[in-house]
Amino acid sequence: MTKKYQIVGVGNALVDVLAHCDDSFLTDMGIDKGVMQLIDTDRAAELYGKMGPAQEVSGGSAANTIAGVAALGGRTGFIAKVRDDQLGGIFAHDIKAQGTDFSTRQALHDYPNETGRCLILVTPDGERSMNTYLGVSSELTANDLDIGMLARTEWIYLEGYLFDSPDNQLAFYKAAEATKPAGGKVSLTLSDPFCVGRHRDAFRAFVKDHVDLLFCNEHEMQALYQTDTLDAAMDIAASEVEIVACTAGEDGAYILNGGNKTHAPANATKVIDATGAGDMFAAGFLHGLTNGRDLQVCGTMGCVAAAEAISHMGARPATDLKKLFSENNLS
Amino acid sequence: MTKKYQIVGVGNALVDVLAHCDDSFLTDMGIDKGVMQLIDTDRAAELYGKMGPAQEVSGGSAANTIAGVAALGGRTGFIAKVRDDQLGGIFAHDIKAQGTDFSTRQALHDYPNETGRCLILVTPDGERSMNTYLGVSSELTANDLDIGMLARTEWIYLEGYLFDSPDNQLAFYKAAEATKPAGGKVSLTLSDPFCVGRHRDAFRAFVKDHVDLLFCNEHEMQALYQTDTLDAAMDIAASEVEIVACTAGEDGAYILNGGNKTHAPANATKVIDATGAGDMFAAGFLHGLTNGRDLQVCGTMGCVAAAEAISHMGARPATDLKKLFSENNLS
Repeated sequence: MTKKYQIVGVGNALVDVLAHCDDSFLTDMGIDKGVMQLIDTDRAAELYGKMGPAQEVSGGSAANTIAGVAALGGRTGFIAKVRDDQLGGIFAHDIKAQGTDFSTRQALHDYPNETGRCLILVTPDGERSMNTYLGVSSELTANDLDIGMLARTEWIYLEGYLFDSPDNQLAFYKAAEATKPAGGKVSLTLSDPFCVGRHRDAFRAFVKDHVDLLFCNEHEMQALYQTDTLDAAMDIAASEVEIVACTAGEDGAYILNGGNKTHAPANATKVIDATGAGDMFAAGFLHGLTNGRDLQVCGTMGCVAAAEAISHMGARPATDLKKLFSENNLS
Repeated sequence: MTKKYQIVGVGNALVDVLAHCDDSFLTDMGIDKGVMQLIDTDRAAELYGKMGPAQEVSGGSAANTIAGVAALGGRTGFIAKVRDDQLGGIFAHDIKAQGTDFSTRQALHDYPNETGRCLILVTPDGERSMNTYLGVSSELTANDLDIGMLARTEWIYLEGYLFDSPDNQLAFYKAAEATKPAGGKVSLTLSDPFCVGRHRDAFRAFVKDHVDLLFCNEHEMQALYQTDTLDAAMDIAASEVEIVACTAGEDGAYILNGGNKTHAPANATKVIDATGAGDMFAAGFLHGLTNGRDLQVCGTMGCVAAAEAISHMGARPATDLKKLFSENNLS
């Protein structure tokens, strides 16, 4: 029987606040280039006060992926926490307007934390440095999960960033328990090498016990398995997880499936803003997988979607992904 | 003596909410293509609920112009009304981050109206159709004006859209009265042919009595003077106003100064989103004027800035305007 959903995501609900800056601004503000740093309310206010004029686009890693799958015509749902403020309204509008079911209970206006946001500084080389104020997003608990939604999806897609919150980790276990007995499968993105480093044991246990499809890049994979070489890390991953999709920047992506390893080349494009490249790779890959394509094609779909994401400011698709896939003879 | 400000704007404080749509969506929603329509709270909620995923960028016609002048290095101030909500925070951040002084008293959180926004639908041809929920922006009164700021500027720049509010009209008279005795001059943009049609007598009286520099396009000028030909309208304008800068889309712009008429050609560019073309023309023109350039160069500067605005989503400059001017041998 066809399930109502192809992919249901569980992740952060963030609005991205994107501004250009020079490398010297990163240095002056003590921002590590190219990575994600968690920041508190005071730091968010300080940094925003010093950032240049910005634009706001809905973000959140898994939310971007789900929006991408939805843009490609997939049946999607999303679970994440916003407050009933204007930024929460923007986040909810954008993901629902893309065709995704999103009905997680909102925190109300007497709540101390606001909807989360990610202050993203884009340097002239197109690299993005992310400063995330999680706000109410980090307070998603197992009680917020829509169990009925999770039982009616082919795949769940979990955002590794959520391992920073113990409540979120518990929610992931409960989500997997709601999905698997109903015949669904579990995918996870490792999200960030430093996040993996902070919670390595928790990641390893969850990956080994519950994950059917693992998304990562080369840095995240080595952070997880702490091997001398990437190949050694890939060997462990392949022995524990049915499918591993490891992106490698300009080298495209490597797909592992048991003893098989395939490669999908990256699509050449000018990098305007690297925000969302990994998120959109996952979107393209999951679109292929849920439509019965072989892993090589899934990888190619991921690379085409990732190239679109880095060709403009913001992570969510700015062009018609269906048309783009069609132009690349992908469907 | 050098004045503290070169340009102080008085206008709407809006956050633009930009989304792509097909022409059929405009028809289905009863939206007149290419113009600005004022909408109320209910209509804003209905339309936003049906719009696709959007991005938010600070907007407001005069605010865009002031941001453009500031991006070119001008000494600028801005006067407009926001509430102390998240969108108000975004508007205030973006204009201050561009280097503009902005300290108009905010409406507080127990106030019924929120910060204004403009729902902008961009069709595949790049045309923008604007649906403006003014919110608290329309409640700017003469009491909100910073008289000291107005007395210390070379030019004020007034946004014609504000003629829709009687309180705003009174504020314009008071702004002119604060500026002129201190040696400042008054510029006005007509903003929109329908707005001109709604308040023709008020516009004509204000233009004749107070305006030293009039910005408009061909449709707005004919709406103001109701002549059979554009040339006849230009003759009247030139007899009443010291400088008239009339844009004409692909034909560039015509500059009138007494009996002299000069022409600046448009810069060829692919139209991605027409939002802000007129606003950025005014920014480039005012930059030239306040830096002592002749009117031909001012017009060329306007056309170069306008071409930048239409080459991307959103009205505010997305690239380094100073560098762009330098590449075009303008400074």
